[in-house]
Amino acid sequence: MDKINLNEKFSQFSEYWSPKTIAQLNQYDIMVVKVKDEFVWHKHDDTDDFFLVLKGRLTIQLRDQDIHLEAGELFVVPRGVEHRPVAEEEVHLLLIEPTGTPNTGDKSTAAPRQTI
Amino acid sequence: MDKINLNEKFSQFSEYWSPKTIAQLNQYDIMVVKVKDEFVWHKHDDTDDFFLVLKGRLTIQLRDQDIHLEAGELFVVPRGVEHRPVAEEEVHLLLIEPTGTPNTGDKSTAAPRQTI
Repeated sequence: MDKINLNEKFSQFSEYWSPKTIAQLNQYDIMVVKVKDEFVWHKHDDTDDFFLVLKGRLTIQLRDQDIHLEAGELFVVPRGVEHRPVAEEEVHLLLIEPTGTPNTGDKSTAAPRQTI
Repeated sequence: MDKINLNEKFSQFSEYWSPKTIAQLNQYDIMVVKVKDEFVWHKHDDTDDFFLVLKGRLTIQLRDQDIHLEAGELFVVPRGVEHRPVAEEEVHLLLIEPTGTPNTGDKSTAAPRQTI
């Protein structure tokens, strides 16, 4: 039963697009991730997708609009909605998804989920 | 499908211990709350309880230890564990709980849940 310091967690890794689980809330993973450049277009048919920007600027591209997020801003992508996160510079994010959700929407291409 | 700016949400209310739902993630409420002074001892038998400090310093008292949180730190109180949040000065928190969870652990004393 320890508290979690977000900056300490971000200091423990450098790779992009590889979410790290830092806590669990019921059947959900609380994760941190560093991202830069473009991810793949994907969707999650079974879950909404929570993004909170902690540092930097993130664009979440949807098929019909772009959502521009800065630090202190969040967005929930509804289930089934195609999206692609894009970051010109490094961005630090807090993510929340049901445990086991593949980050690409597809288990065959998903990053392995690590706990730190 | 709009982004949510946390500071803008905090600017919309001033009362303490009255969580405001700002987004939903599946069957969970994403909430902001301002707190100061002591809350009541309580527990949630059916859910863990997520606290992320965005501003200020919060102590989450447990029966056998105190968890001291600053901005950028989070703690998940496991289900069934008695706790009491305490803040000497105003604190801004992000909370996540299943929709309908009473903030006191008891529907008869819980603050009405508002969406902003």
